[in-house]
Amino acid sequence: MQFNEYYNGRTGLTVGIKQRLFSETSPYQKVEVFETDTWGNMMTIDGLVMLSEKDEFVYHEMITHTGMFAHPNPRRVLIIGGGDGGTAREVLRHPSIEHVDMVEIDETVVRAAKEFLPDVGAFDNPKLHVRFEDGIAFVKNVTDPYDVIIVDGSDPVGPAVDLFSETFYRNCYKSLSPQGILTGQTESPWVPSYHPGIKKLFAHLDRIFEVSRMYLAFIPLYPSGMWSLAFASKGIHPHDPDVMDRVIKGTTTMENALRYYNPAIHQGSFALPGFVREILR
Amino acid sequence: MQFNEYYNGRTGLTVGIKQRLFSETSPYQKVEVFETDTWGNMMTIDGLVMLSEKDEFVYHEMITHTGMFAHPNPRRVLIIGGGDGGTAREVLRHPSIEHVDMVEIDETVVRAAKEFLPDVGAFDNPKLHVRFEDGIAFVKNVTDPYDVIIVDGSDPVGPAVDLFSETFYRNCYKSLSPQGILTGQTESPWVPSYHPGIKKLFAHLDRIFEVSRMYLAFIPLYPSGMWSLAFASKGIHPHDPDVMDRVIKGTTTMENALRYYNPAIHQGSFALPGFVREILR
Repeated sequence: MQFNEYYNGRTGLTVGIKQRLFSETSPYQKVEVFETDTWGNMMTIDGLVMLSEKDEFVYHEMITHTGMFAHPNPRRVLIIGGGDGGTAREVLRHPSIEHVDMVEIDETVVRAAKEFLPDVGAFDNPKLHVRFEDGIAFVKNVTDPYDVIIVDGSDPVGPAVDLFSETFYRNCYKSLSPQGILTGQTESPWVPSYHPGIKKLFAHLDRIFEVSRMYLAFIPLYPSGMWSLAFASKGIHPHDPDVMDRVIKGTTTMENALRYYNPAIHQGSFALPGFVREILR
Repeated sequence: MQFNEYYNGRTGLTVGIKQRLFSETSPYQKVEVFETDTWGNMMTIDGLVMLSEKDEFVYHEMITHTGMFAHPNPRRVLIIGGGDGGTAREVLRHPSIEHVDMVEIDETVVRAAKEFLPDVGAFDNPKLHVRFEDGIAFVKNVTDPYDVIIVDGSDPVGPAVDLFSETFYRNCYKSLSPQGILTGQTESPWVPSYHPGIKKLFAHLDRIFEVSRMYLAFIPLYPSGMWSLAFASKGIHPHDPDVMDRVIKGTTTMENALRYYNPAIHQGSFALPGFVREILR
């Protein structure tokens, strides 16, 4: 059995599947988990790969630590989406953390992850508060601001489409503390149909935040293997000397837990090829 | 019609094909060219993707300019393999170039490229000398040394298997001028079966050259989308201030021709994720 996901005409990924372990159509989307031949279990939403046990470390380390280390003292974090629990796991590695709100619209994702991706999530940590709510509505009414917001949504179709809207990012900005930082996933620059969305999203961030930058990661089970992410802040630049000090010290402390992210990657992942810069122009 | 290439169990790439344009089994390998639905024409060797018209710029810019700009005055260049002509095209952009030898074992590759990938190669340039010979034998008897050697071979199966041997790299070292630089393609760190070969190759380079480093590029039609390359030299480090000066000036001059490589990429592509460092350890 083969799983296929296409991203550019009939170009895409094919993955060997042993069996389907879970399939449920929630009010929001179709959530499935497959046992693959070489990647462990793999979750898909509406036919798009979200993560596998063997490659999820890339996405979760990169969407989390780039922003978390940039903040001098992240105590309160908001995760929008992130139902598999992997981002929460990485956030909770930071010793300064006191409180994490994870706002996931679809309890089906969390239920499937707890059962079939048990090593991914960190759901038992008492600092983590999971709320099954719409993240887009949630950020309209934040009273106690967050130091870091991580937008860990699925692709901008279905319930995640407004995660690419200007209003959403304005509300995120308002929900951040004075040194606040936002990171999020922003699709693949190799997928032509995503170019308008990527361009628009970074234009929003540029207008709303003092600093906004794209960075990249190699994710083998995502379309093309090249994935882009956003870093935005109220003033902290990802390569400020203070930030790099924290990255170097912090990654030394949690070195055994990290399999992708390190100080050189923190620097180098912000280097954008010419054709990617063109998309943002 | 679909083209499939697997790299990890039944995981791999699938590409939509309109028609097969060329298929010939040479004494060395099976060379094919397909018209794809979204990538232009695509060449495969023994069922492995070599390049498509739409993504070849990544590989050719990255295997070429990283070493070419590192050398203060590259006049003589040797390309081992490179039968599609794309590496020669990028080498010939450098104004200091006087003479390029391209040693390609298989004339079938050049013939197919000239006919079906006409915009890739730079075969008409009088500075380019194409020789249909075994590159491994060729480097045993070099009398007039090269400033840069680029090992642009196919995967280490079939005729290219010795491109990963220690003797070959010792001969390359001897064929280089005193400030000589070598670059080459070294497979994907996401493909488990390549790990022993990658480890061994970089161990050879470490022993033979004064400087040796891995760098990375996002290539969507190669397995996993993550590709590694080698930089080795008789002393020049890829991030020496002089090198960075040349990269900044040189990329400004040829800016319109470059779609991937730039000074930030020259720096950032040497950042290696933890799991890649593990392979080299």
